[in-house]
Amino acid sequence: MSTAPTPPRSAPSSVDAVPVDREVLVARAYLSRVAEPPAAALAAFVDDVGPVVAARRVRDAVTEGPGALPPEVVRETSARRGTDRAEADLALLAARGGRLIVPEDPEWPAAALAGLGTVAGPDGAPGLEGPATRDGPAAPLALWARGPLRLDAGPSGWVAVVGARAASEYGLWVARDWSAELADRRCTVVSGAALGVDGAAHRGALAVGGDTVAVLACGIDRAYPPKHATLLEHVGHRGLVVTEYPPGATPARHRFLVRNRLIAALTAGTLVVEAAARSGAMRTALVAEALGRAVMVVPGPVTSLMSLGCHELARRPEVSVTGRVEHVVEEVSRVGDGLAPPPGTPTRPTDGLDPGALRVREALPLHAARTAVRLAHDAGVALAETTTHLRDLEARGPVSEDDGWWRRRPG
Amino acid sequence: MSTAPTPPRSAPSSVDAVPVDREVLVARAYLSRVAEPPAAALAAFVDDVGPVVAARRVRDAVTEGPGALPPEVVRETSARRGTDRAEADLALLAARGGRLIVPEDPEWPAAALAGLGTVAGPDGAPGLEGPATRDGPAAPLALWARGPLRLDAGPSGWVAVVGARAASEYGLWVARDWSAELADRRCTVVSGAALGVDGAAHRGALAVGGDTVAVLACGIDRAYPPKHATLLEHVGHRGLVVTEYPPGATPARHRFLVRNRLIAALTAGTLVVEAAARSGAMRTALVAEALGRAVMVVPGPVTSLMSLGCHELARRPEVSVTGRVEHVVEEVSRVGDGLAPPPGTPTRPTDGLDPGALRVREALPLHAARTAVRLAHDAGVALAETTTHLRDLEARGPVSEDDGWWRRRPG
Repeated sequence: MSTAPTPPRSAPSSVDAVPVDREVLVARAYLSRVAEPPAAALAAFVDDVGPVVAARRVRDAVTEGPGALPPEVVRETSARRGTDRAEADLALLAARGGRLIVPEDPEWPAAALAGLGTVAGPDGAPGLEGPATRDGPAAPLALWARGPLRLDAGPSGWVAVVGARAASEYGLWVARDWSAELADRRCTVVSGAALGVDGAAHRGALAVGGDTVAVLACGIDRAYPPKHATLLEHVGHRGLVVTEYPPGATPARHRFLVRNRLIAALTAGTLVVEAAARSGAMRTALVAEALGRAVMVVPGPVTSLMSLGCHELARRPEVSVTGRVEHVVEEVSRVGDGLAPPPGTPTRPTDGLDPGALRVREALPLHAARTAVRLAHDAGVALAETTTHLRDLEARGPVSEDDGWWRRRPG
Repeated sequence: MSTAPTPPRSAPSSVDAVPVDREVLVARAYLSRVAEPPAAALAAFVDDVGPVVAARRVRDAVTEGPGALPPEVVRETSARRGTDRAEADLALLAARGGRLIVPEDPEWPAAALAGLGTVAGPDGAPGLEGPATRDGPAAPLALWARGPLRLDAGPSGWVAVVGARAASEYGLWVARDWSAELADRRCTVVSGAALGVDGAAHRGALAVGGDTVAVLACGIDRAYPPKHATLLEHVGHRGLVVTEYPPGATPARHRFLVRNRLIAALTAGTLVVEAAARSGAMRTALVAEALGRAVMVVPGPVTSLMSLGCHELARRPEVSVTGRVEHVVEEVSRVGDGLAPPPGTPTRPTDGLDPGALRVREALPLHAARTAVRLAHDAGVALAETTTHLRDLEARGPVSEDDGWWRRRPG
């Protein structure tokens, strides 16, 4: 892992560049560990009293009097309130060239995350079966980040490319090829660094020197999955690795589901490349839909279990099926940017011919001559009209006349 | 080709069974040859004065006085009005066991064809590039048919399964497999008898002893394509072969486009299995859409040119992508019939667990024991709640306690 600090690529303007108070950073670093995300009550409490006061009251576990914690905050924080590693965490982050992005920072993706508090359903995926977190889909308290890309550059032009870990060769090909194409068209490819589609998406973007963001379900110091350690290093070097989990946090199943809401929220649209029925990628798509972001699926063979989730999603009115990567660019770009050109359609030498002329021409056999009267009959076109069409076709080239006998011109 | 007459399977009730006047049949047989379909002006004229009078005036080419033909009818009929093979055509049809279905016959599919006159656009496919017939999308003047299936049994439960002649192995597999499944679920599979998807659709239905209808773009005495001669014989024996073209009519490109409107009109929905950009199958789909029938496409690999047309169609709001044949049954069946069961979703032993309980369970490593305090911390769940969850999990089975140390139960 690179240990050289990598400042955000486009530094904020000098007006914006007031550094966040150290006290705020330390408070948010502490709060980020003290409750398991998404901690809706704690998030609301922090919004209410500010991170510094919130951190002090949580640490002190004030349960009575004017500074008392709401009972839900007590519940969310009681198990870990004694664990304060904020200074050590920040030091570790700095040593690895990372930064803590907080709402007090101009780099905070406020617009992207604004919808999170309003999404219905336990984890922002309404109507989907399966385990769900009890807490609301709250915005994160802070984001641990590493890499030169600024987190507030999206969500416009940012696209989530997600899908199955057990992807097929087809899914891996599409993920990589389309991500390369997306990056080439100045889109930022966001994914979850998992095996399968996620990894192929990051690799595709990196292959063309494009921007890519990995949103982790564990601490930023963890390389998970281990096979992707080098990939994550590349993403952190060129794009951005980001997580709401504090250093050392281990990946756990519920964390992947919780993390997925961030992938959906940070992007203008989610593209599901392959997904089995009831999969994490489907949940990401449903959160994106609930947030009002574009949801797109890549179609695949109906014989492939790995496309089952995509085809089920395709039945939802808000979900679009994209057979061409240009349509993805169109969906996630700012209005008017990146409009897909119309698909190329084959042309035929007979294009633009009058339908009657076409019928007359088709009535002419390949290797025999016909009179105009016979052609009129065979084509069912009036004789005068047939003669006009024949003269017109003669002028255009495809037929010729010899003493009242018409035939096709060779070629 | 079978020469034994095959009467419609469910004969009309005795009240309906008044045979159509021979004079009407002969008139419609003549009219069916005298103009190239779709002949909108002639169709309107026949509706107006009846087939017997219309046939006489066309034959006599009355252009002046009270019985004069409208100029458009003259134009549509002048080239062939002298060709009257009606008696011979009917004799040939009878010899082959066929019948001429006319609007005066209870078997006429009046409900299915009712929309044809009202569809905008030259051939009922508005907004699609490519050659188009000048005439309106008129209903046919008569339908030459052979086979035991009644033509008025649709359009409910009748589904068009269409697609590319140059289909891929995947397309052929889907066409055959889904058509067999559709036929097994009492749907009638309608197609155009072409090579590729069409042929596979007919074969799939026949393979399970199901009903299938081939709509031809040539005379009923023609076996086109020649490779499908035996297939057409089977369709005519078990289902129905039908065409608006008189005996002897040769297949021509414009006739395929014109024929496609009948495939769309005779069915409750059109399923496009594979289609290149700008193909006949796409036109059939657009006519079906214009007629207000269901349009469905089978998704396929985005890497396949043969799925390009399907994926382009999928971008239209009215077109649905169907990954499962059950959805096709649902679309084309009468309301309430054939509802698709929900897809099977995998179940997990942790289904139905409280999210907090899940977090506690996940915090337990596979092969080590933990105290409740440690688990509360790792899961970020309050201690009292953690203890409750542990007792609950213990009762359900997946964890066990030994002197304050908790561990996973094997299996």
